[in-house]
Amino acid sequence: MPQVKVIAKIRRRRIDIYNEFTTLLLELYQLKSVLALLDWDTQVNMPEKGAQRRGETVAYLAGLLHNKFISREFGKLLKSVKKLSQEGKLDEKQSAVAREVSREFAREKKLPEKHVRELAQLTSEAHQVWVRARRENKFRFFLPYLERIIDLKRREAECVGYRQSPYDALLDTYEPGAKAAEIDKIFTDLKEFLVPFLKKIQSDPLREASQIGLKKPKIRILRGNFPIDKQQELGRMVAEALGFDFTAGRIDQAVHPFATNFHPEDVRITTRFDTRDLFYSLMSTIHEVGHALYEQGLPVENFGTPLAESISLGIHESQSRVWENQVGRSLPFWKYFYPTLRRKFPQPFGKIKLEDFHRALNSVRPSLIRTEADEVTYNLHIILRFELEKALIEGEITPAELPKLWKKKMKDYLGIVPKTDREGVLQDIHWSAGLFGYFPTYTLGNLYSAQFYAAAKLSNPGLESQFSRGKFAKFRNWLKLNIHIHGKFYSADQLCKKITGKPLSAKYFTDYLASKYSQIYKLSD
Amino acid sequence: MPQVKVIAKIRRRRIDIYNEFTTLLLELYQLKSVLALLDWDTQVNMPEKGAQRRGETVAYLAGLLHNKFISREFGKLLKSVKKLSQEGKLDEKQSAVAREVSREFAREKKLPEKHVRELAQLTSEAHQVWVRARRENKFRFFLPYLERIIDLKRREAECVGYRQSPYDALLDTYEPGAKAAEIDKIFTDLKEFLVPFLKKIQSDPLREASQIGLKKPKIRILRGNFPIDKQQELGRMVAEALGFDFTAGRIDQAVHPFATNFHPEDVRITTRFDTRDLFYSLMSTIHEVGHALYEQGLPVENFGTPLAESISLGIHESQSRVWENQVGRSLPFWKYFYPTLRRKFPQPFGKIKLEDFHRALNSVRPSLIRTEADEVTYNLHIILRFELEKALIEGEITPAELPKLWKKKMKDYLGIVPKTDREGVLQDIHWSAGLFGYFPTYTLGNLYSAQFYAAAKLSNPGLESQFSRGKFAKFRNWLKLNIHIHGKFYSADQLCKKITGKPLSAKYFTDYLASKYSQIYKLSD
Repeated sequence: MPQVKVIAKIRRRRIDIYNEFTTLLLELYQLKSVLALLDWDTQVNMPEKGAQRRGETVAYLAGLLHNKFISREFGKLLKSVKKLSQEGKLDEKQSAVAREVSREFAREKKLPEKHVRELAQLTSEAHQVWVRARRENKFRFFLPYLERIIDLKRREAECVGYRQSPYDALLDTYEPGAKAAEIDKIFTDLKEFLVPFLKKIQSDPLREASQIGLKKPKIRILRGNFPIDKQQELGRMVAEALGFDFTAGRIDQAVHPFATNFHPEDVRITTRFDTRDLFYSLMSTIHEVGHALYEQGLPVENFGTPLAESISLGIHESQSRVWENQVGRSLPFWKYFYPTLRRKFPQPFGKIKLEDFHRALNSVRPSLIRTEADEVTYNLHIILRFELEKALIEGEITPAELPKLWKKKMKDYLGIVPKTDREGVLQDIHWSAGLFGYFPTYTLGNLYSAQFYAAAKLSNPGLESQFSRGKFAKFRNWLKLNIHIHGKFYSADQLCKKITGKPLSAKYFTDYLASKYSQIYKLSD
Repeated sequence: MPQVKVIAKIRRRRIDIYNEFTTLLLELYQLKSVLALLDWDTQVNMPEKGAQRRGETVAYLAGLLHNKFISREFGKLLKSVKKLSQEGKLDEKQSAVAREVSREFAREKKLPEKHVRELAQLTSEAHQVWVRARRENKFRFFLPYLERIIDLKRREAECVGYRQSPYDALLDTYEPGAKAAEIDKIFTDLKEFLVPFLKKIQSDPLREASQIGLKKPKIRILRGNFPIDKQQELGRMVAEALGFDFTAGRIDQAVHPFATNFHPEDVRITTRFDTRDLFYSLMSTIHEVGHALYEQGLPVENFGTPLAESISLGIHESQSRVWENQVGRSLPFWKYFYPTLRRKFPQPFGKIKLEDFHRALNSVRPSLIRTEADEVTYNLHIILRFELEKALIEGEITPAELPKLWKKKMKDYLGIVPKTDREGVLQDIHWSAGLFGYFPTYTLGNLYSAQFYAAAKLSNPGLESQFSRGKFAKFRNWLKLNIHIHGKFYSADQLCKKITGKPLSAKYFTDYLASKYSQIYKLSD
């Protein structure tokens, strides 16, 4: 039976190529994993004098990873694997791996090493300058650096290539496949809802209601004195209840909260504390747990391929936001946890009724600082940044115009104007780090979270009553089976259609806000 | 002036080769540094499910380091640098770098990759078997693995080569340049002092003394109830007083105490706690601080070369032991710290007099377990192991004879016999991990510590009275200037002669013990 033997040989050859490819790929993921550990350790543990040499170690490893990735050896193998895929000789998961690796490979290949080094050098200096400019409230210190960064990012877009907008080329790093024009359309819908909705809330409908005993929600009634160790206990308890697996992860303290993973069985999050404000740590912990559940839910058996990687920053953010907001700021959630909170902290919660507590936790007030914004105003901060950075990259505006334009948009969208650039255009780290195209993923995350959550509720009608009994496994598993286990098999767009039957739209999020905040603020229709 | 130009060109060429060499060398040290972080994280932080993939990451990086080190590219450069050194074209520090790297390179080159993999595989299995054998007290479970490990280690010695004993080839990994015959001679001197000295102590000379109010030192009077957070405070306070730089290091908890470093500005130690026994953590902290001060004292500007590396395990151990024993168990040290200890823990120390405390802390009693041994008996445990492992590698005895020989030597040296192998031949992890030639470095450390300490006292007569005033900087700087800053510039042997004027001898250590314990036990001459 020579025929069979030949077929077997061909099949073996095919398996050999694919295996050789995934073996090399796994080595790249090992280096990524080590870089993640170095970064985590830098933020969580490293003594201060360690910084300089840590930077050198990271630079060396990052270079090693880059060179291995774009090496001729890897390129050749990738080409063979793509050919196998085109000839239909790989299964669909293998083809997805080939597709995703090719996408990233093409991008990295197009970026000259000189550009990468120049940007790294520039943003490293720009960071220091931004810190100083923000501290001293001097935008003009930062301006020349920002100008150079934007030049480099525009050049990057030209290297990478794009169809419509150079902004698309940058967006693609964080949200593969997303296009500025589509986002623009969705964000415009969102803005057209949010601006009047915020005005409605601010018109203080409770003036009348106060006559029947209802007061305007005030966040300050939640202030108190909360020892850190007791906050830590509470945070761990909540994380555990939501399903964070402490045998495959840990929670530490760091200056900024973040989630990172070395692989799906070692996922680490951080938090920070304010002894007067319990929710400063708790809500960020729930947020990071959402990120962590995504990472812990990725299929570990596929570690070393994009099938064990998250789809995009937007989808990632949808997972953190859905736990933080749809779950963690909901009445059912607090029906379950409020007795524990009161037991742990009789001051001040002993004398606050659950409903008042819930309304205070969800109070809405336009603020100057994005990271302090509530669910309603948050996305207006993002839309403002998206519009500005898109215009910068498209060359419609210049960096020097930013402070003025920032103030104008703040006035138009949020009705308040920062007196200083420190509270305005200088507040975020992103631009100093060259992260253009990153901001919109925050709002995409909010929109996805609402759209996914609506689908989850549709297929599990009793979901929220489960929350009120402290049961979160069903929802967690729904997210895992519908989103996490697929890794990068689907694009964000495909996944959204698969789960919700529709492409991404602002409608689910605006419906969610309208329903929730009409109740909290007793708005008339 | 063509002549000058030619010379300048040659000099430039020389600098180029050496620079290229140290650039590649630094990359190897970056990988070593990352491996140290991975190991530290594994022992201090890693959640349990992370273990499998962490093992794979470490294996990959270790392989990468090995292959880069013995690569043709690196080998060629090393050869050119050695040539420059032989031609007298490098300065003496550069020549020391070439010498030390060549030494390690030659060794690694001689070990076939197959051997390295086989040993890694075998010791990984053997570890599990040893854990089980120890738990179930069944030496015969472990025996076949030990036999195979010894076969491999003997084969390793043949690959590496040696002049007198195959044991020398193994010893060389941990104590470069040391020879079994020399150690044998020194250890015999030591044994000839220790065995009768221990008998003298045990003869209970205090029976008479008790009539004048002196009691036999009893360690158990130091037991109590010591909350972990207060132990941590004390440990950090002592570490800081001794000179541990917390801006270039940290202290964490781990199952086994250890010291590690990523470079001289990021040095980390660990400890563990027993709420009944304060000294279980404190003395091991002082020990690890000794290791850490060595690492923090290495010249950071030479990071990436052997000039910023410790000389040997023996010299490293001398630094931990000198702080733990000569300083940390001395009366002057406790003159300073005892009031603090009493304030922190009035129970039980409030009613124990300083002298009684000091004597209890230094009580001598033969024990079955090495890690629980006191200063007098500790080295007898090591000599026993050294004699047995040397005989195993030289083929004088077989692994099957070990339990019997172990008991005989315990009887001869320490006067006690373990009833079980768990308390005997199965107690240490070293052999299961293939660490033959490692044990003697513990005793070499003790001997070096005494010889160095004698030299330090000679050149700083007021040293101990400084300790009693909490001043440790002078001694720390003496160690730094005489030992730490040299890195691997000198061999252990050269360093010892340079500092003390003499080669290593047991005399300083036996003098130290004789003087200290004659006083504690009121021995007659």
